[in-house]
Amino acid sequence: MSGITRRRLLGTAAGATAAGAFGAGYLAGGAGDDGSGRAASASVPFHGEHQAGIATAAQDRLVFAAFDVTAGSAGELRELLREWTGAAARMTAGKVAGPDNDSQLAPPDDTGEAVGLAPSRLTVTFGFGPSLFDRFGLGGKRPAALHPLPRLPGDELDPDRSGGDLCVQACADDPQVAFHAVRNLARLGRGSVVMRWCQLGFGRTSTTSRSQATPRNLMGFKDGTYNIRAEDTDLMNDHVWVGASDSPAWMRGGTYLVARRIRMLIEVWDRASLQDQEETMGRKKISGAPLGGSAEFDPIKLSALPVDSHVRLANPATNGGERILRRGYSFTDGMDPDLGQLDAGLFFICFQRDPHKQFVPIQRRLGSNDKLNEYIKHVGSALFAVPPGVRPGGFVGEGLFA
Amino acid sequence: MSGITRRRLLGTAAGATAAGAFGAGYLAGGAGDDGSGRAASASVPFHGEHQAGIATAAQDRLVFAAFDVTAGSAGELRELLREWTGAAARMTAGKVAGPDNDSQLAPPDDTGEAVGLAPSRLTVTFGFGPSLFDRFGLGGKRPAALHPLPRLPGDELDPDRSGGDLCVQACADDPQVAFHAVRNLARLGRGSVVMRWCQLGFGRTSTTSRSQATPRNLMGFKDGTYNIRAEDTDLMNDHVWVGASDSPAWMRGGTYLVARRIRMLIEVWDRASLQDQEETMGRKKISGAPLGGSAEFDPIKLSALPVDSHVRLANPATNGGERILRRGYSFTDGMDPDLGQLDAGLFFICFQRDPHKQFVPIQRRLGSNDKLNEYIKHVGSALFAVPPGVRPGGFVGEGLFA
Repeated sequence: MSGITRRRLLGTAAGATAAGAFGAGYLAGGAGDDGSGRAASASVPFHGEHQAGIATAAQDRLVFAAFDVTAGSAGELRELLREWTGAAARMTAGKVAGPDNDSQLAPPDDTGEAVGLAPSRLTVTFGFGPSLFDRFGLGGKRPAALHPLPRLPGDELDPDRSGGDLCVQACADDPQVAFHAVRNLARLGRGSVVMRWCQLGFGRTSTTSRSQATPRNLMGFKDGTYNIRAEDTDLMNDHVWVGASDSPAWMRGGTYLVARRIRMLIEVWDRASLQDQEETMGRKKISGAPLGGSAEFDPIKLSALPVDSHVRLANPATNGGERILRRGYSFTDGMDPDLGQLDAGLFFICFQRDPHKQFVPIQRRLGSNDKLNEYIKHVGSALFAVPPGVRPGGFVGEGLFA
Repeated sequence: MSGITRRRLLGTAAGATAAGAFGAGYLAGGAGDDGSGRAASASVPFHGEHQAGIATAAQDRLVFAAFDVTAGSAGELRELLREWTGAAARMTAGKVAGPDNDSQLAPPDDTGEAVGLAPSRLTVTFGFGPSLFDRFGLGGKRPAALHPLPRLPGDELDPDRSGGDLCVQACADDPQVAFHAVRNLARLGRGSVVMRWCQLGFGRTSTTSRSQATPRNLMGFKDGTYNIRAEDTDLMNDHVWVGASDSPAWMRGGTYLVARRIRMLIEVWDRASLQDQEETMGRKKISGAPLGGSAEFDPIKLSALPVDSHVRLANPATNGGERILRRGYSFTDGMDPDLGQLDAGLFFICFQRDPHKQFVPIQRRLGSNDKLNEYIKHVGSALFAVPPGVRPGGFVGEGLFA
């Protein structure tokens, strides 16, 4: 089935319509990698200077998985990354995970649940955790920026929801397409990796392109009004992409991903008055305007905000000018039987050039002072180096093996 | 904020576009309650002969919650149902949960995360579990069809994922709209109910209208090819709706809902050969054709199917002509740390006129003989009586209190 698109597998009757939709996706996707303003069925190019799924206009749904490596050698890890790269490129284009297998007597080479679905702007973004470098003699290659995160104020981390040697972030406008990608990569990796944890995110809580409206998180507030946008080239270069002068060389064009599973104490939040909620955030709930302003994008006057408000503490002016690119998702994993409360909140993801200069000091300030801490708990945490994009014929992270 | 639409809350600037989208949703929704072929932003009428969310063309996403009643009296339960009815009718129309509260000093009357989102064909469907009738002197009102389900072959039920006095099924094309509905109903119910369990379903696995294509479940097979469709009026009356001659009278126009959390052993399934998978199901994987046929909707020849295949055992001809309306969703709740496997599968929902004559014998046959049992486990189970639809001014289940 190599090279066959998922939609072509539908057969002749449905094929006429399906091929049209797929073609449109392909053409639209070919114009760039930010996906903004395009049909949700479009495809996002896999290859490029940077991995997709970072500056790409945030898709609606997420499946994120962390893996531990069980491979016995660097060569086996390298083969895995080569296989994963091929499968990710194919699935991103709306094709089967492949590469090729038509036998009735073997397991199918694709699990099938995305057959007939559009590419849905799928992106697959790979990262390397600090612990990966404890193996295979890779210690000397570990970027300084990839030191494990320190314990941060208020951390209540569950080791089963934290860490990992490798990560796969699959984002798409159709959750089944994102799930399919992670599942098929996990399957291809069997024997070389085991999944450590996995998180579904049902709704985006960030805006990474000027073409997008600001979504709301489960606190009911707009989230990401003041985010870096893909169009802010200077900000992306200053704060997100590892630059030409940064070390190690194999990470140039890459970035660092911090993931935090932030449980919201929804029942407590829902009992807080509107005034309390707005003073906690530092913004008006419905309009999203900063306190002291009247519209969402009005300039923030720090002095008009409570000193312990989230927006004031997270603002670049409070953090020596440091900024991060946020790209998180709302989640719910049902009831927490221990607490009798919904297990729901924000699966926070951010990208930055150096997490120890950006995420860590910002979160240290927030963790110690933010009024929001009454209503949230950080219960999972992970850090990954996200290598640069892949050229056709290459594989993700190949610079690590040079 | 009573009567204010979520989109109007956006304010003047965004209002022009938003009001247009909302208006379109309203108009489209006014034409009927099946939602088929309409924009995903449309609204589905709340009031009618039957509750919406059953014959409604299956929406893409689900949030399902079961609650236990802590109310002290039948009167308190009745007030809860009246409040829930009002909130569900408002949210279905794309309005805030309300009813009305503009004070800065009180908690907002809506949690806010759906502000700006379209109605998204939200339906909210309520049900009463068998255990509800053990209280408040309601025992005499319990329908015979609402006896608790017996233990079924292969059941490995988790009590934390089973049962409940009340249920709320929220379906929508936007998962945040479905989540918002359940959360706000839970909030309104505080003091009278506690949530028992909650399940997010990320992708529909059924087709309940001829206007819909058959989706695939996480086994990669089309699911629901042979389902009852809303357009099959005779089948709906024979197999789904409680009829004019059925007892009790307060359930006429209603139906019974069985929910089963079916965990798929995905890793095992993914190692099975294509032939084994197809013989297990009794259908071809890509086309969905029954074995012995060549296209999805070809007639099923039972003799061409393995005797232990799922399609053969579930077929009405194997079950004395009994049928059920399936309306399930795919789920994943991350990794199961005990097993080191993805906790994913099918949150099966079906509707029928009498579960003890329909679901129970069918599942008894499947549970004992289905080759599919090598790959699945039933880990949660619940049964609810779904009262008929609500007339304007009424409330759900009011016949119970007559």
